[in-house]
Amino acid sequence: MKIENPNPIEWQFSERASQLQSSFIREILKITQRPDIISFAGGLPSPATFPVEEMKAAFDKVLSNNGKVALQYGPTDGYAPLREWVANSLSTPDCTIAPEQVLMTSGSQQALDLLGKVLIDEGSRVLVETPSYLGALQAFSVYRPEFKSVATDEHGLVPSSIAPVAEGARLLYALPNFQNPTGRSLSVERRVELVETCARLGLPLIEDDPYGSLSYNGEPFPKMLNMNPDGVIYMGSFSKVLTPGIRLGYVVAPLPLVRRLELAKQAADLHTAQLTQMVVHEVIKDGFLERHIPNIRTLYGNQCQVMLDSMAEHFPKAVTWTKPEGGMFIWVTLPKQIDAMQLLDQAIAAKVAFVPGAPFYANEPETNTLRLSFVTVSPERIREGVAILGKLIAAQL
Amino acid sequence: MKIENPNPIEWQFSERASQLQSSFIREILKITQRPDIISFAGGLPSPATFPVEEMKAAFDKVLSNNGKVALQYGPTDGYAPLREWVANSLSTPDCTIAPEQVLMTSGSQQALDLLGKVLIDEGSRVLVETPSYLGALQAFSVYRPEFKSVATDEHGLVPSSIAPVAEGARLLYALPNFQNPTGRSLSVERRVELVETCARLGLPLIEDDPYGSLSYNGEPFPKMLNMNPDGVIYMGSFSKVLTPGIRLGYVVAPLPLVRRLELAKQAADLHTAQLTQMVVHEVIKDGFLERHIPNIRTLYGNQCQVMLDSMAEHFPKAVTWTKPEGGMFIWVTLPKQIDAMQLLDQAIAAKVAFVPGAPFYANEPETNTLRLSFVTVSPERIREGVAILGKLIAAQL
Repeated sequence: MKIENPNPIEWQFSERASQLQSSFIREILKITQRPDIISFAGGLPSPATFPVEEMKAAFDKVLSNNGKVALQYGPTDGYAPLREWVANSLSTPDCTIAPEQVLMTSGSQQALDLLGKVLIDEGSRVLVETPSYLGALQAFSVYRPEFKSVATDEHGLVPSSIAPVAEGARLLYALPNFQNPTGRSLSVERRVELVETCARLGLPLIEDDPYGSLSYNGEPFPKMLNMNPDGVIYMGSFSKVLTPGIRLGYVVAPLPLVRRLELAKQAADLHTAQLTQMVVHEVIKDGFLERHIPNIRTLYGNQCQVMLDSMAEHFPKAVTWTKPEGGMFIWVTLPKQIDAMQLLDQAIAAKVAFVPGAPFYANEPETNTLRLSFVTVSPERIREGVAILGKLIAAQL
Repeated sequence: MKIENPNPIEWQFSERASQLQSSFIREILKITQRPDIISFAGGLPSPATFPVEEMKAAFDKVLSNNGKVALQYGPTDGYAPLREWVANSLSTPDCTIAPEQVLMTSGSQQALDLLGKVLIDEGSRVLVETPSYLGALQAFSVYRPEFKSVATDEHGLVPSSIAPVAEGARLLYALPNFQNPTGRSLSVERRVELVETCARLGLPLIEDDPYGSLSYNGEPFPKMLNMNPDGVIYMGSFSKVLTPGIRLGYVVAPLPLVRRLELAKQAADLHTAQLTQMVVHEVIKDGFLERHIPNIRTLYGNQCQVMLDSMAEHFPKAVTWTKPEGGMFIWVTLPKQIDAMQLLDQAIAAKVAFVPGAPFYANEPETNTLRLSFVTVSPERIREGVAILGKLIAAQL
């Protein structure tokens, strides 16, 4: 019952759609998922840490006891007991976070999209670290801001670099703990200075914190949220401490903003799966994460150390790298003349993969940088892969 | 460790954010969820139809056999076997839909958001039915289009009304089967005429089809997608035939568009939960829906008939209403002088609720209309509630 001779459509996309680019990382991942390749390119948590049995038991329990509710439409702001859990987990003796400030999202990537939607007009200035998380750059790009890069050094973001570019800025986006891509953390002194600077400038500060609890020594950094809950927007996620495939994150914000984000979410996908939220609450409500997260820390910490040791052994002296105290990534700076993109071609030919650093820069990329992840690779393969990379780098010097 | 004397932030929201309004329906639902109220206001499917046991068994099976994969990050376009299932279910002898044309979404609400994001610039013309689905108006509004309403009559959308307003339009949004809110369906002749008109004008036609398989007599209408797969964008959902709380829908579009939608989804939430997609595929792959959907049809068809019979008995002669052949809604037109919003206040006082029609209009609302849903109310309570409404209406004449 097809109609005859239809005109082919000449698609006219929105100007916004022209900003859409596939994540370079996801493109690399397609190439590097072959089992013969030693891939340091991934940003995926190790499946060895996924609590499959606990999740299975919780799905069974929630569906058995409360199936009709779990499978019905739910509230846009999220499952109330889980919002309470999040609020409690973020409250400190001198800073109480209210459940009303919590909006559950479909992964923390959705929080980035909603924040962009609600805060960014075309041409709005948006401040980001140098380098910054690629997913945030992607999410914000859709709303066509003017990105301004803020300088970072080995202690993280440099607060004194903010004021000169803050005029009219809508937000500053920061990932202070074990940053993706650099693995760096913001020092405690810098946190205070950053929060004070943003408060003085009236600049909303986004604290994106997917890796905060993955500190190898178990000592968490203080949250900037708790230093100024009226000026800091906090983003959290269950992806790195439980499992990413369920797509569950949250954003915590002052009430005027969180209500706007909730309306934006209602228009975007109504709500995040009620069943998923009930199951996660069932898994974590009695302290599971306190028992589980140390295992992840140990696994990642050991593999990080193996990679650092291998790099010290195999990388030429002219190469430098970060020494993360948590999280999933190491950032490597090559001598200026080496282009990491070209090195990647050689590396893939030698069956090793990584992510070149350039896509993580909002403005001028440093093309002699690259990101390595160690969490899904065995110690033996880490040593093997780093040795190969060392040889390829040495050959270029 | 709070900082001292922070400036309160003066939030500056995007112009887009000023378009955000809470769905009037969701506001009504908050009032009407009290058990003493007979609510015809809902748009929720009946939980009596949720296949809890089948879902539970499928979660158990998927997590047991494939837990590590199900809980890991997944591809943005969706779980390949489910995309294949969708493509097969939409293919006809003379129109093959390819899995590559299918993008899985977090409910079909997300498909509306992604379509708005990729197709609508500020001020772009967007054509909608009169009245239209509120969730679509909300999703598109965020991107600040100029809505133009296209006339409808008892056979649905009037194709000859399109050309006069089609100049520069980016899309026409239609819900041809058992429409929300009117319960009306587009006649087969009209479908052909509509598809031909849009093809002639080079106008992308969105066919939103959440209720298509809920035809009370079991006979589905032909899909406009199959009449012109190069010009029709099809949206489907598992919310009304399986369960809404898992948030799973899909959009089927020509390749140039579906690739843009995929990039927009990557920036919006990376991907829809892999576990959910694997579980739904597990539940439906061997023909479950063919056995399950007839039960939903029978339940809804019977309750629709009870409501239609009660209305014939209790509503004054000056009131008219649609006679749906499927779906979840009846649309009532009161005499012009009655304002449904005022009637709602009286109805709630008398412990009956419905949704006034005005919010479903993109442009001039007809304030003497209202929407009734019968799917979550027992026959006895349907009779009781309709009798009360009939008295309230009669008292105004």
